Amino acid sequence: MEQLFLYLVPFLGILGLLIMAIKSAWVTKQPTGDEKMVELAGFIAKGAMSFLKAEWKVMGYFVVIAAIILGWSGTLLDNSSPVIAIAFIIGAVLSAFAGYLGMKIATKSNVRTTEAAKTSLAKALNVSFTGGTVMGLGVAGLAVLGMGGLFIIFYNMFVVSTGGDVNGHEMETALEVLAGFSLGAESIALFARVGGGIYTKAADVGADLVGKVEAGIPEDDVRNPATIADNVGDNVGDVAGMGADLFGSYVATILASMVLGREIVSDDNFGGIAPVLLPLVIAGLGLVFSIVGTLFVKIKSENGNVQAALNKGNWLSILLTVAASFFVIDFMLPEGELVMSRLNSASFTKMGVFGAVFIGLIVGALMSIITEYYTAMGKGPVNSIIKQSSTGHATNIIGGLAVGMQSTVLPILVLAAGIFTSYMSAGLYGVAIAAAGMMATTAMQLAIDAFGPIADNAGGIAEMAGLPKEVRERTDILDAVGNTTAASGKGFAIASAALTALALFAAYVGISGITTIDIYKADVLSGLFVGAMIPFIFSALAIAAVGRAAMDMVNEVRRQFKEIPGIMQFETKPDYEKCVEISTKASIREMVAPGAIALISPIVVGFLFGHEVLGGMLAGVTVSGVLMGIFQNNAGGAWDNAKKSFEKGVEIDGQMYYKGSEPHKASVTGDTVGDPFKDTSGPSMNILIKLTSIVSIVIAPFIPLDSPLGLSDNSEAAIDKVAQVIVEEPSTIEVLEID
Amino acid sequence: MEQLFLYLVPFLGILGLLIMAIKSAWVTKQPTGDEKMVELAGFIAKGAMSFLKAEWKVMGYFVVIAAIILGWSGTLLDNSSPVIAIAFIIGAVLSAFAGYLGMKIATKSNVRTTEAAKTSLAKALNVSFTGGTVMGLGVAGLAVLGMGGLFIIFYNMFVVSTGGDVNGHEMETALEVLAGFSLGAESIALFARVGGGIYTKAADVGADLVGKVEAGIPEDDVRNPATIADNVGDNVGDVAGMGADLFGSYVATILASMVLGREIVSDDNFGGIAPVLLPLVIAGLGLVFSIVGTLFVKIKSENGNVQAALNKGNWLSILLTVAASFFVIDFMLPEGELVMSRLNSASFTKMGVFGAVFIGLIVGALMSIITEYYTAMGKGPVNSIIKQSSTGHATNIIGGLAVGMQSTVLPILVLAAGIFTSYMSAGLYGVAIAAAGMMATTAMQLAIDAFGPIADNAGGIAEMAGLPKEVRERTDILDAVGNTTAASGKGFAIASAALTALALFAAYVGISGITTIDIYKADVLSGLFVGAMIPFIFSALAIAAVGRAAMDMVNEVRRQFKEIPGIMQFETKPDYEKCVEISTKASIREMVAPGAIALISPIVVGFLFGHEVLGGMLAGVTVSGVLMGIFQNNAGGAWDNAKKSFEKGVEIDGQMYYKGSEPHKASVTGDTVGDPFKDTSGPSMNILIKLTSIVSIVIAPFIPLDSPLGLSDNSEAAIDKVAQVIVEEPSTIEVLEID
Repeated sequence: MEQLFLYLVPFLGILGLLIMAIKSAWVTKQPTGDEKMVELAGFIAKGAMSFLKAEWKVMGYFVVIAAIILGWSGTLLDNSSPVIAIAFIIGAVLSAFAGYLGMKIATKSNVRTTEAAKTSLAKALNVSFTGGTVMGLGVAGLAVLGMGGLFIIFYNMFVVSTGGDVNGHEMETALEVLAGFSLGAESIALFARVGGGIYTKAADVGADLVGKVEAGIPEDDVRNPATIADNVGDNVGDVAGMGADLFGSYVATILASMVLGREIVSDDNFGGIAPVLLPLVIAGLGLVFSIVGTLFVKIKSENGNVQAALNKGNWLSILLTVAASFFVIDFMLPEGELVMSRLNSASFTKMGVFGAVFIGLIVGALMSIITEYYTAMGKGPVNSIIKQSSTGHATNIIGGLAVGMQSTVLPILVLAAGIFTSYMSAGLYGVAIAAAGMMATTAMQLAIDAFGPIADNAGGIAEMAGLPKEVRERTDILDAVGNTTAASGKGFAIASAALTALALFAAYVGISGITTIDIYKADVLSGLFVGAMIPFIFSALAIAAVGRAAMDMVNEVRRQFKEIPGIMQFETKPDYEKCVEISTKASIREMVAPGAIALISPIVVGFLFGHEVLGGMLAGVTVSGVLMGIFQNNAGGAWDNAKKSFEKGVEIDGQMYYKGSEPHKASVTGDTVGDPFKDTSGPSMNILIKLTSIVSIVIAPFIPLDSPLGLSDNSEAAIDKVAQVIVEEPSTIEVLEID
Repeated sequence: MEQLFLYLVPFLGILGLLIMAIKSAWVTKQPTGDEKMVELAGFIAKGAMSFLKAEWKVMGYFVVIAAIILGWSGTLLDNSSPVIAIAFIIGAVLSAFAGYLGMKIATKSNVRTTEAAKTSLAKALNVSFTGGTVMGLGVAGLAVLGMGGLFIIFYNMFVVSTGGDVNGHEMETALEVLAGFSLGAESIALFARVGGGIYTKAADVGADLVGKVEAGIPEDDVRNPATIADNVGDNVGDVAGMGADLFGSYVATILASMVLGREIVSDDNFGGIAPVLLPLVIAGLGLVFSIVGTLFVKIKSENGNVQAALNKGNWLSILLTVAASFFVIDFMLPEGELVMSRLNSASFTKMGVFGAVFIGLIVGALMSIITEYYTAMGKGPVNSIIKQSSTGHATNIIGGLAVGMQSTVLPILVLAAGIFTSYMSAGLYGVAIAAAGMMATTAMQLAIDAFGPIADNAGGIAEMAGLPKEVRERTDILDAVGNTTAASGKGFAIASAALTALALFAAYVGISGITTIDIYKADVLSGLFVGAMIPFIFSALAIAAVGRAAMDMVNEVRRQFKEIPGIMQFETKPDYEKCVEISTKASIREMVAPGAIALISPIVVGFLFGHEVLGGMLAGVTVSGVLMGIFQNNAGGAWDNAKKSFEKGVEIDGQMYYKGSEPHKASVTGDTVGDPFKDTSGPSMNILIKLTSIVSIVIAPFIPLDSPLGLSDNSEAAIDKVAQVIVEEPSTIEVLEID
């Protein structure tokens, strides 16, 4: 049984990739429209690839160096192995490949969606959503194949071949090596999310400030030198960045659940590894049912409700996954009590495990709904910003900041309740499994997420190519839905990152060998403070980076308007490539500092102050990162939609205001402030909190128990010693018990 | 020896109050200027008192209800007593009285400073700083007298009269009852800081938006109906609010040090209570040397350096306090090892305790210096905002937000290092003593803080009364120095609040009887998340409150300009009182919601989830509150000075910009956003983090060990049980050791 299920997982991954290939071929076969459209799409595709290439170059150096360090350190300790370096490289390559696939299909689907929009809305939806599906299946398929395949190898290498204990040290080594895969994936996600976020906003702000404001030409005008870079940015940030982010979360949650599953002594028909295998199987099931769900995303007429079609597909895949999880959990896990003897020693039943899966899905759904409420047009929060725009720029900003801060309340309560209840259901394993359950339908989630930027691009091409009005109207309908899904997608992404980080946090404690993270110890508390500060400096760097990169772009666009004659008369083409190059260079340059903080701070703190202080720091990064992420995402989303509301016209105190009015200008200020919030620093929080946790897991075995500056010694060895003293000299208990 | 030192403390408090009375009489004797000035000052004084009265009414209800609840619950448990209700009332009354004294002297000093400024800068400094000194001595004197006096009573009542143990339960009860005093003080601080913060900004924004922007009349113009409210606001927010805040910190640090001092078994000449008595003695010494320091704050000529004079006095009082602390610690504490057997069981020497005092003073000084750097004119951060103002409102905002976030790094590292080193010096007692050391010269610090708004008011009166230019120039010099001291004062206040909260956090654990706060437990981690979210919702409410209150003010000022003819021609006086009333009502109304959150959330979490989860929540509130406080204070301060820089003229890319230029307008937007940041929600974080901790300390004895929803049982009783099992059945250790 064990072998069957072991091999089932990568098989399901391959199945997903096969269907992806079929859908990809279908998209490629769709008509691409006239020469002008093809040329424009070509510019975008070329720009996107040139960013990927530049990014890969930097990542290449990083991956090689990191792999050498990892491989070398792996040989230092008997509980790890240089194999971890290979896992790391595979994780990085697969993540990069997933980004490549997504980018490739997105830059194919955009122009084909434009062409399809000439015929009907239904067709345009079909093309753009199929493009998104390719992305979703690519990411999930590669993740399931990679994790499933590598686990088979490492399980055989470290456990089966050594006759090792499936609950013991040998399995721990197998999973520790597998963590290398996750580290590789998340490192690439860092570059993709942070670099992509800087890229897209530098191009966007640059294109807007000079094109729209100074030169007075419309958005996506072909005369604007930065317009191609702007459209590339949508792909780089929203497609590749989001894809890498969710790829990383997906892999990390599975990993964390497996690490915690090892702690469960399970008398099952899977050679005792059912709790370790289960997260992989659930991921595989989620992939299959995501495919099923995508089949139901279609509309029949021009008046079809696109949002409803997406919702139908999404909920279908979620419900099918829940149902299937129930049977799988019932089949795989043994009857009776499942006991985690270490790590807060929980005991629970298999229905508790199913409860955790269910909780995870509910948390994910609630987070999406709450995010939508705080950022959607026509709802209270956005309306409050609109009203405050009537008294000027400052009150618009104050309104948006207040909305963003306020919007943290419900998500945090949901998250806290999710942690609490999933823990009650199945201990720390339950927390991780909840995250895994939430991530199970990542393929579907990503299909919905990626469809938005494709539609956005399709509209841009329609505008630049000067197509008839009804084409743009159709793509605008898709784009509007895409904006909503983008907001709820961000809610899902931060929720998944939060649960993933918590699961990783739990796994870290498991691997590090400590048993508590006691913030009543002064050094651990200091770690908590420093950790909580990191998202602030990370955000500051990311925001400032966008400012600098946008300045470069502004100067270049101004230069082209001045130095290249005939652009305004459509006689000369602007130098699009130069703008693409500037965005690319700036984003690569600017992502180094925040990236370095995420990678280096856990290493410094861990080796200087020891496991427990590092644990405190991780908690600080997670808590503060989740809050800053929600705050920035939602403030940015609300500002954006407050501005968009003016385009349709809004009523304030009985008077109507439109585009160009003073309140609208104030709302543009808010939107500009919100851009780096919602597209750069906010989403980067996901990567920050996951990456610091994964780095900690990977370095945990190398951190000595008596760190140079550590005050706390809370290792198992120390506890053993204490226990021994208690047994040998019971008279000393009075002091020890309260130590 | 014990009796001598016990009675020395309240005596020093009385000494401080006596000198305050002498200085106050001196200020009252100073000339008040012409009739017009007296009339204007009268309006301000009347407005300030009408705010105090309105505030007292609300506070009165609150205090009576809270006292009844406290007294009633006190009788339920044998380890507390209805006496706590009396301590609570005394704390509230003294805090309110301190605010009254400060407000009274500030509204006397302002007009007398204006009059003195007719003669010379030296004289104006003398009057305004003496006014500040009265405030400082009043706050510190009342605190030292109150804490010292009540401790004598409770020590005799609960320990001496019962023949109780000075390290035992009896002393714990005495200190627990004393915590009521601190709770009373901090509750009043909540109303003063939050209400005052809303008041001052509602009036300021209202006066500016209609007066300066719409009607085009200068600041502090007598025709502006909101100008009196604006000047009242300076007193309400910066004098009374800051005073109550520091009064609360001062009392709370002393309390926390005493609670932790009880844990030390000390073989001294003070009946074993030297570690408990020490924080009181240090506070008394700090008060005396603050008085000495104030004598050195003077300048000799018109060109004298006011800032240098303040610095001299400040450093002198700090150094004298350090030196005196050395001798007092050496004299009071016994030779050899001091041992805290519980609470992470530290052992240290008396020089370790001195080291902690020293660390506290260094942390305070560094925090002030760092804050000044991030908010001062001419330094990098403010210059970066100035530069980003040249590209519009949005980039100005982005620049300020980035500066604010970035400015958290150094303070957090200083704080973390302070916690770490003071803990290494003297365990958790060291952390509390560091806070006490930092707060020792509160009287001096507050004198410097309060001098600023007095000078600001003096300038306002000079403007409104139409006095000659040189008078305003002199008050402007004082006001500019006041702006700098205000910024560094805020750095000091947040640092003190942070260390106080940490000390209280440590004391809470001591009183609650738990021994760890393990964030590896799911419920404790949930508590950490919820706690960290509270500063976000608190800030959102405070910021939104300012927005609403300012709107009320804007409408009223507009109404007066429209309905009262002749205001603009100086023929009719505007209805100042109506504006004062609006600000008063709005601030009282708006402070209820944030205040309720601070008071109620620890009670709900504590009783539902138990001690350890409440501990997690406290840590969350503290960490996130400190970060949000620093972020908002510094962003606001930097925006303010970026705007002020334009008034003198700034150079951006080789071009000069002045008041009225586009970049200046962008900087005004930033300043307006920054106003509620730096004067309302930012400083309120201090109160929030202290109040949640004090509430927790007070409710700790009432929280049952098995809370309804608690997952963690980490009480001493539980540990006892575990220890017993270990002893009786050593075979079960393998499970227990790692539980």
